[in-house]
Amino acid sequence: MTSASPSRDHGDPGDAPTLAPPLSAPVDAVRPSPAEEARTIAASTNSATLATLTAGGDPWASFVTYGLLDGDPVLCVSDLAEHGRNLAADPRASLAILAPATETDPLANARVTLAGHVEAPRDDAERAAARAAHLAAVPAAKYYVDYRDFSLWVLRVQRLRWVGGYGRMDSAAGADYRAAQPDPIRPDAAGAVTHLNDDHADALAAMARALGGYPDTVTASCTGVDRYGLDLRLQTERGMAYTRVGFASPIDSMTELRSAAVELTRRARGH
Amino acid sequence: MTSASPSRDHGDPGDAPTLAPPLSAPVDAVRPSPAEEARTIAASTNSATLATLTAGGDPWASFVTYGLLDGDPVLCVSDLAEHGRNLAADPRASLAILAPATETDPLANARVTLAGHVEAPRDDAERAAARAAHLAAVPAAKYYVDYRDFSLWVLRVQRLRWVGGYGRMDSAAGADYRAAQPDPIRPDAAGAVTHLNDDHADALAAMARALGGYPDTVTASCTGVDRYGLDLRLQTERGMAYTRVGFASPIDSMTELRSAAVELTRRARGH
Repeated sequence: MTSASPSRDHGDPGDAPTLAPPLSAPVDAVRPSPAEEARTIAASTNSATLATLTAGGDPWASFVTYGLLDGDPVLCVSDLAEHGRNLAADPRASLAILAPATETDPLANARVTLAGHVEAPRDDAERAAARAAHLAAVPAAKYYVDYRDFSLWVLRVQRLRWVGGYGRMDSAAGADYRAAQPDPIRPDAAGAVTHLNDDHADALAAMARALGGYPDTVTASCTGVDRYGLDLRLQTERGMAYTRVGFASPIDSMTELRSAAVELTRRARGH
Repeated sequence: MTSASPSRDHGDPGDAPTLAPPLSAPVDAVRPSPAEEARTIAASTNSATLATLTAGGDPWASFVTYGLLDGDPVLCVSDLAEHGRNLAADPRASLAILAPATETDPLANARVTLAGHVEAPRDDAERAAARAAHLAAVPAAKYYVDYRDFSLWVLRVQRLRWVGGYGRMDSAAGADYRAAQPDPIRPDAAGAVTHLNDDHADALAAMARALGGYPDTVTASCTGVDRYGLDLRLQTERGMAYTRVGFASPIDSMTELRSAAVELTRRARGH
């Protein structure tokens, strides 16, 4: 159906870039789960924006720093600040965290919202662990963490919404988030991506052709790496495309990345 | 009073750095108003974190892009996204915006929360202006701004909370915010600060001694510049200090900065 209206259905891409579909099913295209993506984003920084409720029930967004206690954010806020008064009166809260930007288009970058309620640490042991977690992430908090008018709050995450960029998003439960581990590769991914693109562009194209479902790949570049594999951006004979190639098994460290990439290259070239 | 408790009153700086007080009143230490600071921060970027209310009344923090229509943020969000559904059901919202970081300590950087409620544009003229304002700030929105399931929302700012860093914060009303102008100097301040520190350190120290209230200044560096003057960080014979020196009259452009700085230097040196 066409329409004379200037509005378009979301299904109509308008002049948005269109992507070539794969010609065969990618091999081993496993990705991190939404809970793993969320844990990785939460571990990638120490500041975020908190949403709380004012006395009138209005939503209040404010900048905060945090550390992580088994994945749950630990805040240290002044009881005199608006967000501190809000949390003391109503524990419902959510925290929006942005991963470090890798794209110039803001909406192409990864972010997560962690939602739940805050609690004071349950006992002295948890208080000590929460204090240490906050200080490990926010060294300058040593100047105020023990002030009488500052409180430590643990955000007990009940649910989350992860957005990986355009068209990549999902939800997860708090229990899955706490059980997940941050990706061990992502903190150093930028250097690995640069190395793969500078020195191994032919291998990336071979992977896309043999394992990524795009036998008509002309050129390929790596846009991301994590414990499970590589994200690739392709030029094909049919236009631009994105795909994914997975490692034979998940890797735990940067030192394992080299052998995993060599194994992928051998498999792609049929050796 | 001393205490055996590990907690400290907020008034006790503990091992936080202490600052030397001025020995005389600074001359012309006018600063931007909180409303002006807020307008400048809002104009400094195109992404922020929105707080909305879920169907259950919980606070929901989510990343958004925005443009500005006479200072009021213009959002363009999917009606299918959680924040889009929230705004359609309850217009109360606030937006936390971070200025580009100038300090490594996250809490030392400037930010603002703009709070109010969203409205659809009031008529076709405002809709066209809101659409243009969003697209000017977020060029990639051209791919989805006209989709039927995306809505433009104007956040009518009713109040704001500005935080300039440690110990610098204030509130302002929405009307004052809309009447304020973004600072014309701040977008290019970083280069000016570098130039002043690299080439005019003696002049900065002379300003601090004669005009900034610190005749015992040993060295001075510039930490910020805006339409009204210069922020200075000093080493004095009594320790570290911060002060401010104001231009003879507010400046409107980078080209006026040079003559204003020369005039300040002459005045500081008694010429």
